[in-house]
Amino acid sequence: MEKMIIGIDIGGTKIAGGLVNPKGKLLKAVTVPTEAAGGFDKSLGQVMALIEQLISQGGGRDRIRGIGICAPGPLNPHTGLVINPPNLPGWKNVQLTKRVENRFKLPARLENDGNAAGLAEVLFGAATAYHDIFYTTVSTGVGTGIIINKKVYHGKNGVAGEGGHVSIDYHSPYRCGCGTLGCIEALAAGPAMVRRARVKLEQEHTLPSLLRERTQNHLSRITPEMIEAAAKAGDAVAKFIIEETGFFLGVWLASMISVLDPEAIVIGGGVSRIGKPLFDKIRETIPLYTINRRFAKHTPLLAAKLRKNVGVFGAASLFLQEGERAEKN
Amino acid sequence: MEKMIIGIDIGGTKIAGGLVNPKGKLLKAVTVPTEAAGGFDKSLGQVMALIEQLISQGGGRDRIRGIGICAPGPLNPHTGLVINPPNLPGWKNVQLTKRVENRFKLPARLENDGNAAGLAEVLFGAATAYHDIFYTTVSTGVGTGIIINKKVYHGKNGVAGEGGHVSIDYHSPYRCGCGTLGCIEALAAGPAMVRRARVKLEQEHTLPSLLRERTQNHLSRITPEMIEAAAKAGDAVAKFIIEETGFFLGVWLASMISVLDPEAIVIGGGVSRIGKPLFDKIRETIPLYTINRRFAKHTPLLAAKLRKNVGVFGAASLFLQEGERAEKN
Repeated sequence: MEKMIIGIDIGGTKIAGGLVNPKGKLLKAVTVPTEAAGGFDKSLGQVMALIEQLISQGGGRDRIRGIGICAPGPLNPHTGLVINPPNLPGWKNVQLTKRVENRFKLPARLENDGNAAGLAEVLFGAATAYHDIFYTTVSTGVGTGIIINKKVYHGKNGVAGEGGHVSIDYHSPYRCGCGTLGCIEALAAGPAMVRRARVKLEQEHTLPSLLRERTQNHLSRITPEMIEAAAKAGDAVAKFIIEETGFFLGVWLASMISVLDPEAIVIGGGVSRIGKPLFDKIRETIPLYTINRRFAKHTPLLAAKLRKNVGVFGAASLFLQEGERAEKN
Repeated sequence: MEKMIIGIDIGGTKIAGGLVNPKGKLLKAVTVPTEAAGGFDKSLGQVMALIEQLISQGGGRDRIRGIGICAPGPLNPHTGLVINPPNLPGWKNVQLTKRVENRFKLPARLENDGNAAGLAEVLFGAATAYHDIFYTTVSTGVGTGIIINKKVYHGKNGVAGEGGHVSIDYHSPYRCGCGTLGCIEALAAGPAMVRRARVKLEQEHTLPSLLRERTQNHLSRITPEMIEAAAKAGDAVAKFIIEETGFFLGVWLASMISVLDPEAIVIGGGVSRIGKPLFDKIRETIPLYTINRRFAKHTPLLAAKLRKNVGVFGAASLFLQEGERAEKN
C-alpha cells in the first residue's frame, strides 16, 4: 500500500499540516494559530503535536514515508537547521529535522517556504509541464525559489533563491528589513504597495481617491486588498500603484531571466491575485530590461495554482522530488 | 596517444586559436586581427584557415578530439547557431558548428565567451577547488557565466548567464547598448568608468585632476588604463571613479549571491586588473546589499588566473568538461 507524506508549514501566524499522497492529493489538512509569543518550547510543542495527530490520522507510523517541513528562512536545508527566522521568536539554531526524526523515528526534511512552494508548483501546480522555473510569491514579503530539473537549487550554503532581496535601485529611499536599499521586497510586496499609496496621497494631498474615502483619510489603514478593490472600481491612484508594482516586478523578473533563462516564471502570493492588470504590466516591462528581449517576451508568466495549503504541498514535495527523480531518470 | 583540442576565440578585433592538451596545457597559440569589415565570408574564411593551420600543426585530424569555439553572444550553444553578435557584421544566424563539422569532419562546439571563460577558470584557472561559481569578466562589457557542478548552466534558450545586463538602478541616466537602464555593464564596464570620469570633470570644471593634465583637458581621451594609473599616482578623482566602480560591482554581485549562493566568484577582464582598491570596495559593499550577509561576506572573491588566451582555454574546455564529468560521476 502506498505511503503518505506529512507536510508541515511553520509560519509566524499559523502552523498548517496535512497528509499528502504520492500523487500530490491532500487527504487531511489541519491548521492551528502559532503561539509564537509562548516562545520556542510552546511553538515547537505545537509542531510536534500536529505531526503526532497526522501520523495517527494517517493510520500510524508504518503508513508514513516521511515528514516534510517548510519554514521561513534563514535555514539550512542540508543540515535541517532553522537558523533565526524573524517571525518565530526563540527559534535560534534549532536542529529541527533531527528533533523530529528522533521523536517519530521517521525521516524528516526541511526547506524554506519559497523553495518548497516552487517545487510544489512544478510537481503538482501551474508548472507541471516544465523542469526549470523561477518561482516567486509576492505577499507580505517577496519569496523566491529556483527549480532546476524539477529539484530545488540550493547553492553552497543552502541559501540560494533569496531573489526577493535583489536590489533594482541601489539608491532607493526604501530600505528592506534585510538592510538592502531598493530590493524588490522593499518596493513591490504588499506593505510596500501600501506605503507607496500612502506617500503618494500625503504628498499630493488634493488628489482625490477612493483610498481616502474608504479610510476616512486615515491613510495608515490602507491595505493591499483595498488597493486592489479601489483599482477595480476605477480609482486612478490605486491603478497607478498596481502599475508601478507591475513595473518593479517586471524590471526584477527581467534580471532573473537574464541570469537564469528559466522555462517559465510562476507568480504566487496574495499580491499576485490582482491578476491581469498586474501581469500585463509585468509582461510589458520585462522586454525593456533584458538583453534577451526576444526570448524574454516569450517566457511564460504563470499564476500559481496552489493557493490554499501551498506550504503543506511544498513541504510534502520534499519527499516527492526523489520519487520524481527515480521515475524520470 | 592523447588527442588535442582546438580552441578558437572569435572576437570583433581578433581571432585567436590554440592547441590545448587534455590537462589544459596550451601547446600552440595563433592570433590574427579580425577582418570584420570584410564581412561574413572574409571573417569566416579566417576562422576556417586558422582551424586548418592548427589541425596541421597538431599532426593531422586523427590527433584532434574536437574543435571548441567561443564567440560573443547572442548565440545558441545547443544548436551551434551564432545569432547576431554586434561586433561581427554579417554574422547573422550562422550555423557555425555545422559548417565547421562538415568542413573538417571533427566534432565542434560553440559557447558564449563568458560561459567558456568561467568554465576554463573552474577547470584550469583560479577556481579549480570549486564546483559552482559565478564568473564575470569586466572589460569593454560585462560578461558572466554560471558554472554549476563544473558545467556551464545554460537555461532554456541557452542564453542564461547574461548577468551583465541585470539593472541595479532602473531609473539610471545610463542606458546600456542592450537597451536596459542602469544595467551593470552600463555602470561599471571600462567605457562606463571613462564616461563617469568625464562627466564628473565636466560638471566640476574647477576640480583638479591628473586626468585633465594627461589628456591636456581633452576629456574624451580618457581611458580605463589612464584612470588606473592616475589612481595609483594618488589622483582623487580617479580613486573616486574606481571606488564607485567597486561599489556598483558590489551591489550587483550581492544580488548574484542572493540568487545563486555560489561557492566562489571569479572576476576577470581588463578592469579587474586594477586589483586591490577595486576588490576591497567590492568586498566592503557585498554584505550591505544582501540578506545573506553572514554567508555573503565569506564568499571568496577570486581574481581570474587565465588572462592571455582565456578565450582559447575556454573554447577548448568545452571538450574537457565531459572528460571531467566522466571522471567524477
